[in-house]
Order: sequence, then structure tokens, then C-alpha cells
Amino acid sequence: MSDTFHFKGKWINQSILVSELESEMVGVGLVGTGFMGKCHAIAWNAVGTVFPEAGKVRLVHLGEANEEFARRRAAEFGFAKASGDWRAVIDDPEVDVVSLTTPNQFHPEMAIAALKAGKHLWCEKPMAPAFADAEAMAASARRSGKVAVLGYNYIQSPAIRHIGKLLDEQAIGEVNHVRIEMDEDFMADPEALFFWKHEASSGYGALDDFAVHPLSLISVLFGRVARVMCDMAKPYKDRVTADGGRRAVETYDIASVLMRLESGIAATLAVNRSAWGRKGRIALQIFGSKGSILFDQERANELQLYVTSDRPTEQGYRTILIGPQHDPYGAFVPAPGHGLGFNDLKIIECRELLARLAGRPSRMVDFTEGLEIERTVHAMARSFEQQKWIEVR
Amino acid sequence: MSDTFHFKGKWINQSILVSELESEMVGVGLVGTGFMGKCHAIAWNAVGTVFPEAGKVRLVHLGEANEEFARRRAAEFGFAKASGDWRAVIDDPEVDVVSLTTPNQFHPEMAIAALKAGKHLWCEKPMAPAFADAEAMAASARRSGKVAVLGYNYIQSPAIRHIGKLLDEQAIGEVNHVRIEMDEDFMADPEALFFWKHEASSGYGALDDFAVHPLSLISVLFGRVARVMCDMAKPYKDRVTADGGRRAVETYDIASVLMRLESGIAATLAVNRSAWGRKGRIALQIFGSKGSILFDQERANELQLYVTSDRPTEQGYRTILIGPQHDPYGAFVPAPGHGLGFNDLKIIECRELLARLAGRPSRMVDFTEGLEIERTVHAMARSFEQQKWIEVR
Amino acid sequence: MSDTFHFKGKWINQSILVSELESEMVGVGLVGTGFMGKCHAIAWNAVGTVFPEAGKVRLVHLGEANEEFARRRAAEFGFAKASGDWRAVIDDPEVDVVSLTTPNQFHPEMAIAALKAGKHLWCEKPMAPAFADAEAMAASARRSGKVAVLGYNYIQSPAIRHIGKLLDEQAIGEVNHVRIEMDEDFMADPEALFFWKHEASSGYGALDDFAVHPLSLISVLFGRVARVMCDMAKPYKDRVTADGGRRAVETYDIASVLMRLESGIAATLAVNRSAWGRKGRIALQIFGSKGSILFDQERANELQLYVTSDRPTEQGYRTILIGPQHDPYGAFVPAPGHGLGFNDLKIIECRELLARLAGRPSRMVDFTEGLEIERTVHAMARSFEQQKWIEVR
Amino acid sequence: MSDTFHFKGKWINQSILVSELESEMVGVGLVGTGFMGKCHAIAWNAVGTVFPEAGKVRLVHLGEANEEFARRRAAEFGFAKASGDWRAVIDDPEVDVVSLTTPNQFHPEMAIAALKAGKHLWCEKPMAPAFADAEAMAASARRSGKVAVLGYNYIQSPAIRHIGKLLDEQAIGEVNHVRIEMDEDFMADPEALFFWKHEASSGYGALDDFAVHPLSLISVLFGRVARVMCDMAKPYKDRVTADGGRRAVETYDIASVLMRLESGIAATLAVNRSAWGRKGRIALQIFGSKGSILFDQERANELQLYVTSDRPTEQGYRTILIGPQHDPYGAFVPAPGHGLGFNDLKIIECRELLARLAGRPSRMVDFTEGLEIERTVHAMARSFEQQKWIEVR
Repeated sequence: MSDTFHFKGKWINQSILVSELESEMVGVGLVGTGFMGKCHAIAWNAVGTVFPEAGKVRLVHLGEANEEFARRRAAEFGFAKASGDWRAVIDDPEVDVVSLTTPNQFHPEMAIAALKAGKHLWCEKPMAPAFADAEAMAASARRSGKVAVLGYNYIQSPAIRHIGKLLDEQAIGEVNHVRIEMDEDFMADPEALFFWKHEASSGYGALDDFAVHPLSLISVLFGRVARVMCDMAKPYKDRVTADGGRRAVETYDIASVLMRLESGIAATLAVNRSAWGRKGRIALQIFGSKGSILFDQERANELQLYVTSDRPTEQGYRTILIGPQHDPYGAFVPAPGHGLGFNDLKIIECRELLARLAGRPSRMVDFTEGLEIERTVHAMARSFEQQKWIEVR
Repeated sequence: MSDTFHFKGKWINQSILVSELESEMVGVGLVGTGFMGKCHAIAWNAVGTVFPEAGKVRLVHLGEANEEFARRRAAEFGFAKASGDWRAVIDDPEVDVVSLTTPNQFHPEMAIAALKAGKHLWCEKPMAPAFADAEAMAASARRSGKVAVLGYNYIQSPAIRHIGKLLDEQAIGEVNHVRIEMDEDFMADPEALFFWKHEASSGYGALDDFAVHPLSLISVLFGRVARVMCDMAKPYKDRVTADGGRRAVETYDIASVLMRLESGIAATLAVNRSAWGRKGRIALQIFGSKGSILFDQERANELQLYVTSDRPTEQGYRTILIGPQHDPYGAFVPAPGHGLGFNDLKIIECRELLARLAGRPSRMVDFTEGLEIERTVHAMARSFEQQKWIEVR
Repeated sequence: MSDTFHFKGKWINQSILVSELESEMVGVGLVGTGFMGKCHAIAWNAVGTVFPEAGKVRLVHLGEANEEFARRRAAEFGFAKASGDWRAVIDDPEVDVVSLTTPNQFHPEMAIAALKAGKHLWCEKPMAPAFADAEAMAASARRSGKVAVLGYNYIQSPAIRHIGKLLDEQAIGEVNHVRIEMDEDFMADPEALFFWKHEASSGYGALDDFAVHPLSLISVLFGRVARVMCDMAKPYKDRVTADGGRRAVETYDIASVLMRLESGIAATLAVNRSAWGRKGRIALQIFGSKGSILFDQERANELQLYVTSDRPTEQGYRTILIGPQHDPYGAFVPAPGHGLGFNDLKIIECRELLARLAGRPSRMVDFTEGLEIERTVHAMARSFEQQKWIEVR
Repeated sequence: MSDTFHFKGKWINQSILVSELESEMVGVGLVGTGFMGKCHAIAWNAVGTVFPEAGKVRLVHLGEANEEFARRRAAEFGFAKASGDWRAVIDDPEVDVVSLTTPNQFHPEMAIAALKAGKHLWCEKPMAPAFADAEAMAASARRSGKVAVLGYNYIQSPAIRHIGKLLDEQAIGEVNHVRIEMDEDFMADPEALFFWKHEASSGYGALDDFAVHPLSLISVLFGRVARVMCDMAKPYKDRVTADGGRRAVETYDIASVLMRLESGIAATLAVNRSAWGRKGRIALQIFGSKGSILFDQERANELQLYVTSDRPTEQGYRTILIGPQHDPYGAFVPAPGHGLGFNDLKIIECRELLARLAGRPSRMVDFTEGLEIERTVHAMARSFEQQKWIEVR
């Protein structure tokens, strides 16, 4: 069925003799076309235009829940073939790398199958609801020798990348304290109906839903977490059900965590998915011996820097607007102050993935490091259950 | 030569039987591949994925200064054919619409030729350095019956669109005063060499370089300008030349304008391209009988609204983060607070263009309205020369 | 009558043998006890505690519209004597300096009488509604040889003072452009009744009501204004009267001005007293060859500084919170970031006045410089009437 | 000796026949004249002018470490008598209320003595370094029947007061989560010398130095704390000593606390006195079922309110500038947006104290409630020592 698409495929960044080069292009498969699936599709469509040096890609095969839907999405997203069965995508010999964007509970089976099929994998975060599954995925990735990376897009932000550079060059001296918060309000309405995210089967709550994002930032900026002490809370004890009754909420929308990093830094993490007014806040405060840095994802095109090398009468937080001097903003817009958007982060991530496929240095959270993030999240949950500090490893 | 690309073209949003549908797709030509050329290319590549309902496009033919460069860019941007002669693009029968992104002085000849060749036109702003040329372009567009629109991307911003909605529904009552500023600092360094933007042949200075952007916002939000009183200034009288001498600067980096709109609103406009610290500021202050609205392009994902219907003790500017409820943010990201970037504005603009090509309502500045914007700019310059109020028409 | 208060007066900063020192203390008279009168009273009560080195004062005599009211206020404000006739205050031999805080139209008669009576004068701004009266006041001050200064408190702000220092040391190089705005919303309600500020007899409108404040800042930071081009507008043409009718508004709530300073700086001024949402905004933008400075009175405890000496990747506006290193913040609070309030500005002003009385250097707008400010305002009004640029002198 | 001052005292808010009224005035004694002593003096001098209805006061007697210093300060601050012995102040029969602003370790002895001497007490926070001493002070206050209150000035802020009102009227529904931070950088310099605040004898560190302030806000806004789980950290392990050696730092500049309030609210507290860039930050985030509220003491004249009753497309944090409608701002300035300063908070506190002395309702933290705050701080320290959750009571 999908064969009928074959010669009408869309080649991005094709060079002159496409027929000759086809084998050198990276063949892309996409499984799942929701929020993140579309986000991957936008990235795959844009990466060659924004980053011509990144390499060439072909959008080969798209998989969705049924064939009709798959065909519609393939047409929208520019994929050559469409299938109602995800296995057709990972078995397609023209597919070199699979974008896996299905709901988290499907990740283990699909990811391991794709790796076994010899595909590289770009899997949305988190790896899996159960830690054992995440371990199996990481083991499978190790065995396969394939590239297996996770979609932690915030680490790609030019502002976050620049913060990393500043830390590396000790612009604020030695870091001694970090606070990070992630808050949204999509579950804040107490009148909203009970749904699957309120069931224990969906996980702990904000902890696994959100904390992996801040932890990805901590991972790339400061390294691993050593010990955790976690508290969790429910803003609403129960909720209305579709039939007009009320049902007890089983997950925790709020989590607050004391942490010690392996480097010795004392840190705190706070997440809340019922925080009215917060839309996409990831607020970072980094304190060092010679200054401090602030960042908030809701104003992702700026960062705040305070350094003691400024004259005392003029010390203050600088609001630095990202621009061409902050990698890789200039590939999107050559003028400063024009701003990148959320989808642009995924385009950068896609560039990093292509770099890794080509054996070049890249900045991504792979399955090994991703597993450490999830190990940390599960340690936090255990800490809450046992009401005590837990060593992550 | 460009024929060799023909069957290897890139189809965006193709549907099942591409061969049948090819004639229904919009064939795209791109002339120029600088800052704005790349921006158009990103938009053409993304529009179908972001806005599946917008219609299908084919990236047919790219023109650049020489064939080798054109071929390289075509490969990068995903165009099927490449030519070193822009006339090949506008003469290509497969091209339906031409993206014209060359330097402003080339617009008149190329735009008129494209319209005469029966192509629709998406021309970067401003129309032309000389008003007579802009008039000729508008006349040509009228005669052609083709769609001829300008790349005023800031009017596409979800925040600006929402401001328009708020004004329409009289959320701040009747508007009585408007202030708008546009400032950047790319010419602020007094040690930078004299270059072509310092020559009178490049235009008046910040006035034609910048003012068209704020005027496009005024045009869509408040209508036309009736009278203007303008002052212009040079921050630096002369500049170093490449040979170590100094040359008098002939253009004005600063312009300040008193205005009366046709609606009677008293307004001011200030532009400065030597404003250290400003990167992409377009700051709008709108005062009405029941409230006010603020916007700054450097924080383009938010707007500020003050309304007197709030209880007096809680009146204050609301910082509204744009989200899915602000058209068309949701097509990019389904969650609020994640932010769009500058390039996303061009994708929205591209959607509007496709809507106009399909005869649907759209929000664009066409050549007729664009001519009014340029008429206003030239009236401002005349006002400065004559040191008096000038009626725009 | 007021004699009965004599021995019960309040001495601020008295030293051990008050009776001996009384003659060395500055005797204070206060005429008027409204907004500004209370503000002066707070300053006179606090100045000795906050600035022990400033000198000693005695609160001698308070004048109000009638004796009963005067007595009540004298008791509240700590003045020893009270009179229902302002002449009793300026004739009191124990009074050395008169705080004049009555409505503007009373300033000329009272100020000239006080100067003739040999008193120093601390007069609230502006000097007088009519320029001829202001001229007479300045002439009287010159003849008297007494200290005659105006209550331009914003020039006392530690942030503004520090901006002055930064400009003096060329921290942002040579200033080439300045924009200043002052906006409030106390007249913004279109349903509010017609009152005296809508009558032409009250003056031009926002121009004389507000513009003197920004002009005082321009005066101390950049010097005098050379030429002006002004536009004025009425947000509401008429208003409801107490009897339910409507009456045409005669004053202009909005004024926008193009300016050239004597130093050659191109500047703009915008004032609006019907600007919904603005409460006490005085927003200053200063652009120089090496940086820029921003300030907003609504956040008076901070200023923004951008300098090109910062490394390009970290250039950005620094939000500098005023602290002990910014004169004279430390006299109020020894710790930074705690913030001063509006009344504290008047206490600083009072210290400056005491310094001037003692023959020490001080920072105040005296009647000579104040006259220049009012000359500028009247030139602006003439510019609007004649619709052309006007030379101030 | 101090008698010589007697008839030269300073009467604030005296009314006509001072001699008759003297007995009705509140006689004030001040012990200590450092940062807080001067702050009290400013308040006592200003309270009658700012709040005429508050009652009359006389500045009777000032005590300092030696008589000469006491005399100088008395002259500066306007007190009638001066003594080098604090006991002379509390024994003075003309003194009704004692402002106690000496270093914390002197509080217990002086406070208890003052209460025993039948004086009302306005004691700076915290009560005492040792909890047993604080208990003794509270017991003494209870026995005395006198007013004994603490100088928690931040609870007096018009913004904090308005937040209290908003919470009371359920403007953001039922509160379910609170985060509070207090950060300064006066100990952030790693090169600064070892001093007494680094010694264990000074207390735990930031915990007792700072946490009482946020806890005072929690106390008035949300009630008492039930359980705590605390972590503490040292940014710098050792410091240079005056003799060029290095000495181990014994106190903790950073503390992070998980909390459950008696009301069930889950909260976090973070304090840091080595947080470069923070000058006087007390940042409060309050999340409820219908909105949220933000506050930061560094911008103390504004608060942020988000309510879900706003139309979804216009929901956003409102930046509310405090003004006359926010009690008691209007007593300082009748116009909005002009701003209060830190010292103004103490003037408000002084008004509250006078109200309590007069038996009227007032908003102050008395010794009973203050003891609960200190109990909570000590519970936090115990939690850190034992590495586990601690019940406060």
C-alpha cells in the first residue's frame, strides 16, 4: 500500500543528482503525529534549510494508528509512504532513523523493536513509565550500537547553551547553589473532569510528567544528582467524573525536592502542573562565587547574568537577548533580538541528531544519560513514599 | 540547465496521486536568498506541515546572482530548479507565485516583470527606494489582476492580531493616542566603517529603513496617516572610511515624527538604528477611553492589557502570554506559553498568501496599501526638509 | 494668638542647650498643607534624623486658609505656631525659610512677598501659570539675594543622580538622543465630571501640568532646550457637567514635542494625563555612542544601563538596584535593595536646601533655572498655536 | 544628667495645650541606634505627621553604649534625654514604650527588664538566639500584661496587606501551594574576611538570620507551620582570617525547607545570604484554585495577580501598582504609582503599635506569635541535624 507513494517522496536538501545521492541521504520514519509528532515533522522539514551543513534527509515513511489517518498526515507532513502499522515503518529498509512520538507507555516495545531492526532512534521523553522498561531500552540501545537519543529540547535553547558556556568559563565562579522550577496550569482547574492523568497508572504526577525536563537541564549544566528528599501534594483531593460523581485523584500535581548533586551543589526542584498563571515556566537560578544566572523558559529569548567583575555601583542583572553570537541562533535569523520559538528548539535538536549520526560531536541526552534522569525521578518518588533522603544510585 | 531538476522536485503536502494534483499545487519561485530569502524558504518548507489546510505548494525554481550559487541554495532550500538569471524564474511556466527578496533597488524591475509574466508576487518590503517606482509597481499590480503583497511580517504576530481583535471589540474603548517606536543598534558603533547605508543614495536613513514596519502596524490596527511633522538627526556626523580617512554621513539614523491619523488619533513615531541596547524593539503604546495596550517585539510572545472594567484595587497591566487561544499560535504548538519565533511570523504570512491566492479572506498588506505606507514615509521626509507639517495625500 | 504656641514648639535635631542654639537653627514656615504641604512637613520632620549633618531646624509657623484648620495641621505636623493668614508666617521673625505649597496661582504674590520679607523660599513647582509672573518672581529672587528654589523632587532620586554621574564620566559615551515620557491616568475617565483643570484658565493642560517635571530632569542631566515643535490633543472633546449637561474641554491632556537641546541632542517629550494604566510614569531613554540608559519612575529604585564595554555575547541592559553606593540612599537604609519612596525624595531635597542655606554646594532648581523651564513650556505652547518650530530664547 | 534635657524635649503631634496633654502622650524610649534604631527613630518622628489620627507621642529618652554617643544620637533623633545606660531608659517614668533595637543577644535581658519595669515593648526581630530565652521573653510578656510586639515590618507593606485582603475574599480561591524565597548577597564574596556571622555562636546561619521574615509573612497570610524538612549548605567551606590564615565557616548561608502548614498547604522556603545579585529579595508565589499571586520585595510597590475570572484570551498576571486604594499608602501620598520605601514600612508599623497601645485592632506579630515563628526556625534546624521531617509542636 505504501509503495504507491514511493516515487513521489519528498526529498529535503537534495543535491543535483538525487537518484545517485538517495543512498547517502538519511531516511526518516515517523511514528506518532500528535503534539510531538508534528513538532518532529516540522523539524525534519526545516532542518536542511536552516542548517544546510547538517546533511540531507528524506522523509520516507509515517506510521499512525490507522492507514487513512496515516495517509492524511503523510500528505500534510511530506512523507513519501504511510502505514497504519508502526512495524511497517521500522521495518522499512529505506528508513535509517525513527522519530518515536507515541504515548510513553508504547515507547518500550516500539523503541526496542526499532533498535533490533537496526534503526537509529529519536525517542520523545521520558523513556518509559516503568523504570525497568527504561532499563531494558537502555540495554537494547547499548547492544544495538545504534544512536538512541531522547527529545529533551530545552537543552538545545541558545540561552541554555550560552549558560553552559558561561559556566564552563567560570563566568560566575564556582557554582554553589541551584534552584529550578517548572510550572504550568493545564491541570489547575478544579472543575475539570477526572481523566487518565489523575490515575495512578499514569505515574506519580508532576514528578514524572515534568521533572525530567528540569533534570535534563541539570544533567547538561551540572551533572548527575546524588541524593534527593521529596515531598508531593495534591491540590485537589477528588474530581468530578463524566457521570457526575466524584473520584479520588491518585496522582500528585505538586512535587518539591531537596537535592544534592554529585558535584556537591545544593539544589532544589519544584514542579507544579496546577499552577494557575504559569504556562511554560522553567525557571532556573544559578548562584556562584562570582555571580549568578537566571533563566525562564516563558521568556526563552533572554537570560539574566550578574557578575561581580562589574563596578559595584553598576552591578545588576543584565538582560541578555539572544542573537547571532549565541549558537545556533544565527542560522535562523542573522539579526539579534528577533527571537526563536519552541519549534526552533526541535530543529536544533534535529541538527544535533544528524551530527551524531554522522559521527560528529553533538549535544543530546542519549539513552544512557536519559536512564539516569529517570533513575533520579524514581528515587524522588521513593523518597516521598519513605519520607526520607534517598541516594539515587 | 534547470530542466535537469524537474522530476526531482520537492513537493510539500503532496497527496496520494501527486502526478494528478501537480497542476493544483501552487508552484513557487524564489528570487534572492539572503536574510529574507532564507526566511521565505523556511516558510515555504514549513507552511504545509504547520497549516495543512492552507493548500499544497511545490518549490519549483530558485534564482540567484550566478548559477553555481543558485544550485547550492536550491539544494539547501529544496527547490527543484536553479538559475543564475532571475528572468528564468519568472518565466518558468510552472511557477505561479514569486517570492521576491532581492535588495530594494531591484524590486521595481523584477516585480513589474513578474506581474507582466502573469505571476503572483510576494515582495519583501519596502516596495522601492523611489516613490515613483513604488507607484509604478502598484499600477502594474492593479493592471495585472494578480495578487501582489508585501512581506510585512509583524502584522502576522499572534500578539498583534489579538491586539487588533481587542481594538475591534472596543476592549479599551475608543483609542485616542498611540505611540510607536522601532529601535535597533546595528549602526550604533561610531567606530564602524562608512558603508552604503550612510550614502544618500540608500535613502533617508532609519525613516525608510525602519518606519515602514511601525507604519504597517498602524495601517492594520488604526488605518491611514493624515498629516506628519518629522525631525531627523545624525548621531555621528562622519565616519572612518576603508582608506583611513573620514567621510560625512549622509543619512539620518534617528527620526521622530508627530502624526495625526485619518481617524483623528494623535500619534508619535520614533525610529533609531543607532540605539545601543535595542535589538529588535518595536514598542507600541495604545491608549483608549477604557484602557490601554502595550507591546514590544523584543518580547513578542506577550502583550500588556489594562482595562478599567477590572476592580480599581486590582487594576494593572496584565502580561498575557500568547497561546492556542490566540490565532494561529495553536497550529505551531498546542500548549500555551511555549513561544513562537521570528521565522514563524513568515510561516503565518505564507499561510495568508496562500489564502489570498485561493480567494479566501487574508491579512496582508498589498501593493495598494503598501504604496500608502511609502507615501507616508516620503511625506515625513518632505516634512523634515521643509520643517513643517505635511498632509500625506 | 500664635504666641501661645511659642514655648511648646518642636525642635528637630536640638543639641544640648537648645536655648543657646535656637538662633542657629533654621526656622521653618509652611504655607499650604495639601499633597505637597504634607510632603514638605514630612521632610522637615525627618531631615535631621536621616541627615544629622544637614543642620538643625525648628518648625516655627504654619499658615492655612483659616485659623482652626491651621491649628489642627500645626498640631499634626509639629509646628509651634499656626495662623489663618499666610502673611503672619512670612512676617514671623523666627521664620528663616518658607515652604510655599499653595495652588500655583497664589505663588507669585506669596513668593514675592516672602522674598521681600527677607525669607528664603522653597516653592513648589511650577512657579506660576503666567510666564510674566514667573519672570517677576525670578527678578524678585535675584534682587533679594535670598535662596529661592523649586520643589523639583525627581532630580533628587538616587537613580537620577547616579545617571548624572554616569553621564558625567561618559559611561555611555557622548549622548546623541533622548526620549522622555510622563504619563498618568488621573484624568483618563471620560465619565468624570468637567472640573477646573478642563478650563483654559488652568493653563494649557498636560503641558504645564506635567512637562516641567521631565524638563527638570533634562535641565540637570543635559542642559537647556533650544528649539521645540509641539502637538497637543484632547482625548475627550467635552465632558459631563454637574448639572447633567456637557461642556467643551478647553485644555489638552496630551502633548508631544520634538526638541533640540542647546547641546545639539535631538530629543522628544511626550506627556499624557489621560493615559489609562500609567500611574506615575516618567520614562527616560538616553542613547549615547557607547551605551544607553533607561529609567522609569514607576520603578524608581532601579535603572537600566547598557554599555558596549561588556563582552558582546553578554551585552544587555543591567537592572541596577539602588543601594548605599548610590548617594544618598545609605542615609535612609544601610542595606541595598530595600528601596526608597516618593516622600524620601523630598527629604533629600530638604537636605539640599539646607546645604544651600549654609552656603554648601547643592543640587536644586533655583528660580533662574526654573524660569528657563517655564520659558520652554510656554515656547512649546506657542509652537502648537503657530504650528511651527519655535526657538526657546 | 539626662534631666537637663527635660524641658527641651521634642513633642510630636502636640496639640494646643501641651502641658495639659503631656500625660496623654505616649512617652517613647529608644535603646540602640544602629540600622534598626535609626529606622525606629525615623518612624517615631514621622508617625504623627503621616498618620495624624494615630495619637501623640513624645520622644523622651535614648540609650546607647556610652553617654557621649547617646547625647549625639539624642540630638540627631530628637530625643529629650540621653543615657549611657539602657536601664535609665527603661526606668524613666516618662517612658511608656521602649523601642529595643540592640543586637539580638541583648534582647532577653533588656526585654524582660523593660516588661518588669511596666513598659510596653517594641522589640526588633528575632526575639533571641536561644529558644529558651525567647520562651522566657514570651512568658514575661504574658505575665506583664503589657503590649510586647516584634518589628516584622514586611507584614506592614501595602502590597502584602492587599494580598491578605485578596486571600480573605478568596480572590484566588482556596490556596493549595506556596513558595517563598529570601535572598541577599551581603555574605556572597568568598574573599571577604571571616567574621562573627561565620561562628556557630551567632546561630545556624541564614536560617535564623533570614527565615523569620518569610515566616512572618506566612504567619499573617496562612497561619502556622506544622512540619518541616530542612537542608542547609555552606557555599564556602572556609574563609580568610584577619591574620592571613583560613578558618572553617561554622554557619550555613543557604537553607532550603519543605513545609506543611497547619492548614494543609504544601509550601517551600528557601533562603540564601550569599546569593550574588539579590539585594533584598523576598519572593512569594501563592497558588490557589482560582488564580495566583506573586510578590517580590525588591519591587515592593507592585504585586502580580492572576485570576481565572478574566476571559481566557486575556488571562495574565496583572502588575498592580500600589496606590491610595491600598491601605495605608494614601496617608503617605494621595496619588498612585509614586511608591513607598522601606522606612515607610516602619512608620506603618509604628501606627499599628500606637493602635494596639490604644486598644484598637492592629496588625503586629506579638511575642506569643513571634515565639511560634522562632519555634519553627529551631524545628527546621533540628530537622537538618536529624535529616528528617520534624513536627513543629
